[in-house]
Amino acid sequence: MRRPAPREAAAAGSPDATAPQTAEDDTPDEGAKPGTDARPARFSRRALLGGAVGAASVLAGGSAAGFAAGRATAAPAPAGTNDIVPFTGGHQAGITTPVQEHLHFAAFDLTTDSRDDVVALLRRWTLAADRMTRGLPAGPHGTDGGPYDAPPDDTGEAEGLAAANLTVTIGFGPTMFTTTGTPDGADRFGLADRRPAPLENLPHFPADMLEDARTGGDLAVQACADDPQVAVHAVRNLARLAFGTATVRWSQLGYGRTSRTTKDQSTPRNLFGFKDGTANIVAEDHEALADHVWVAPGDDAGADWLAGGSYLVARRIRMTVETWDRTSLREQENVVGRTKGHGAPLSGGSETTAPDFTAAGSHGPLVPADSHVALAHPSANDGARLLRRGYNYTDGSDGLGKLDAGLFFIAFVRDPARQYIPMQNRISRSDTMMEYLRHTGSGLWAVPPAVPAGSTLGEAGAYLGQELFEA
Amino acid sequence: MRRPAPREAAAAGSPDATAPQTAEDDTPDEGAKPGTDARPARFSRRALLGGAVGAASVLAGGSAAGFAAGRATAAPAPAGTNDIVPFTGGHQAGITTPVQEHLHFAAFDLTTDSRDDVVALLRRWTLAADRMTRGLPAGPHGTDGGPYDAPPDDTGEAEGLAAANLTVTIGFGPTMFTTTGTPDGADRFGLADRRPAPLENLPHFPADMLEDARTGGDLAVQACADDPQVAVHAVRNLARLAFGTATVRWSQLGYGRTSRTTKDQSTPRNLFGFKDGTANIVAEDHEALADHVWVAPGDDAGADWLAGGSYLVARRIRMTVETWDRTSLREQENVVGRTKGHGAPLSGGSETTAPDFTAAGSHGPLVPADSHVALAHPSANDGARLLRRGYNYTDGSDGLGKLDAGLFFIAFVRDPARQYIPMQNRISRSDTMMEYLRHTGSGLWAVPPAVPAGSTLGEAGAYLGQELFEA
Repeated sequence: MRRPAPREAAAAGSPDATAPQTAEDDTPDEGAKPGTDARPARFSRRALLGGAVGAASVLAGGSAAGFAAGRATAAPAPAGTNDIVPFTGGHQAGITTPVQEHLHFAAFDLTTDSRDDVVALLRRWTLAADRMTRGLPAGPHGTDGGPYDAPPDDTGEAEGLAAANLTVTIGFGPTMFTTTGTPDGADRFGLADRRPAPLENLPHFPADMLEDARTGGDLAVQACADDPQVAVHAVRNLARLAFGTATVRWSQLGYGRTSRTTKDQSTPRNLFGFKDGTANIVAEDHEALADHVWVAPGDDAGADWLAGGSYLVARRIRMTVETWDRTSLREQENVVGRTKGHGAPLSGGSETTAPDFTAAGSHGPLVPADSHVALAHPSANDGARLLRRGYNYTDGSDGLGKLDAGLFFIAFVRDPARQYIPMQNRISRSDTMMEYLRHTGSGLWAVPPAVPAGSTLGEAGAYLGQELFEA
Repeated sequence: MRRPAPREAAAAGSPDATAPQTAEDDTPDEGAKPGTDARPARFSRRALLGGAVGAASVLAGGSAAGFAAGRATAAPAPAGTNDIVPFTGGHQAGITTPVQEHLHFAAFDLTTDSRDDVVALLRRWTLAADRMTRGLPAGPHGTDGGPYDAPPDDTGEAEGLAAANLTVTIGFGPTMFTTTGTPDGADRFGLADRRPAPLENLPHFPADMLEDARTGGDLAVQACADDPQVAVHAVRNLARLAFGTATVRWSQLGYGRTSRTTKDQSTPRNLFGFKDGTANIVAEDHEALADHVWVAPGDDAGADWLAGGSYLVARRIRMTVETWDRTSLREQENVVGRTKGHGAPLSGGSETTAPDFTAAGSHGPLVPADSHVALAHPSANDGARLLRRGYNYTDGSDGLGKLDAGLFFIAFVRDPARQYIPMQNRISRSDTMMEYLRHTGSGLWAVPPAVPAGSTLGEAGAYLGQELFEA
């Protein structure tokens, strides 16, 4: 991992490096130790890591603790970084963004009954996500710039690391709308009548072995970055800001992207050792994105707040790699429907050649009808396509001598009921690959559009999901 | 993650790209499909990924399946890679090697009673580790170059990735010598009288909360690389080659090194958000390495096979980050004994300033006597030092709304009984940091010296640990 352009770069030479402490920090403290109170180096760069905004609130000497003063249109990023993906814009980042190398995904449960608490949480998350994606600490004081007797407003482990193309993508689960995640559940926050029709708990698929502790969640956060510590830092700080309102239900680390979302990204390999994501929808294909990924105005009359958004489907799919590794190359290729080396369809050609499902040898189709590529192909699914954005995972071992490894599948779709559910039913029933897979986790979330670029963020400003709560 | 210098680069333009299949592969197969049998592209580059060695055995048309023909002095590496750390040499790689960004650590249990099986396993591991650290597939046929009705001799997911400074470091646990890992256990493989005296199960430390499924193991493999998929691939392929002889007891993924082992590496941060490893032993400090890391001839008269080796201590240390994140900066700094921002000792100066434990303010020492830095410092431990090489980990959540995150501590020492055990007892008893830590996994392994550079490896050649089994 490269660690270029440390976050301190911009502030290092700042003329404000000797800025005074905040009012709070000047308050005499009973238990103060003279030596540590002096803290000669602490306020030099770190208090100003937030750039102009952080500096302004510090210099104003106001009530700058926590997020009260955290109001920012566009906190300036550290100089010299070109690995920043804006949090604001039209669609949320982290969907068509070129797939980063690392994932930290977390599902949260809301522990409050108050709609105002949820809105306040989304405001805090919006501010912090905007800052962190710019390579700034989660809060204006950073790691050690705040009052000495308060917790820092950033946990610190990403200090000195680059922005690393961090994206934070936030989704709302069915259980945020009704207690059961189904239409007949109780209205939790006065949002039940705004629930998009497809936002229901996913059905039970054949062979599902879901664990409750890896399934569902009122909110989802997909943090992707080219440095795992940056992705972990983002989720951790959002969890910290959720204290009292939401707790982490489950989380998942992923590495080694298994898809590409732009034409110029290479096709990576999954833990079956095969190229994965060859036929994925890419950012350049605007027509496919409009058809298959973005929710359009009018798709769902009762939930226009989701127009410009999408649905995120997550599936934790354990691969029984030890069994796979003892099967023949012939079996592996017939299960996938492609060659292992080059990823070409078994009907011939190269990786990018379209599979010819009619091409037959003396023993039947060259691409077996029960192969993964045959069953997942749009031609077998009424033309349905997905934008896939999954990651490999390896979570230690299962205590039975086997690795707990596989694919954390993520897909973005315009309508899960038309696109994902029929396809997964078909695959779960018939795909020979299922012999080597176990679906152990699952979730569906509605991903609203982004906060518009240029918005004022913060306490009284714009926040993610605002149209759901306020329209 | 950069993915430069793909493994295929060297073979891409090879004049042998149309090399014939092996004899096995030419055997007519009952279930063959004409179209797939042709496999026009499959043998082009991939069969030759092993470079000259793989090509030679394929062209010879001999019995090249599996490792029978895998005999190599120095399989040539793909061209254009400068990220290869040799597996052979004096000491094993992965100790003073500049710390890579990612870890996959695995402990194995031997499931055989046969000493010959153990030796055969170490021969296979030596060959495969030597190949993989060169950026080559685990076996000479690679991902798809072998017989179509046999499993590939590489699992494939690292194909196209760089060597990524992969190191594979192998250790022998106490339970490889006696059944119980203690001197009075039964001799498992005729090695009991060669057990080094310090190689005993670690004692119970105060506040230990060890899980059996994360503790111990007959063998340990520490795979480190700058690409997580390369580290995971290495462990997975060694596990595949262990089938029938050893199984994975537990494994651990780590990211974000928490130490530095060379002067020019920056000091990273752990999940407490503090700089970690400032005072680590570095590769340039030969005197400290000789004193504190490398076992010297005569250290242990009955175990001279370990001279030039070391001991690896691993501890899985969960941090209760949610609690930590709600404590004040004052508390955090007093627990660590250093400033959070710069990592300077609380007695003043900069990160590299030696702590002054005598410096006092009106309330006592500036560096609290129960702080981590005070208790872990050599001055509190009869001058003992460790070479630390740990990683951060994040393993999802605990089902109780909290992240399962922390430090996978790894240290290399010359004598755990003199260096690690007294220090850990002191820390476990008195360190205020223990309030935020839970030790959930543990292990100790003897790490023999490397296979000498230039050795012939393979069936009849040199292998890791040979002096233990054959001297």
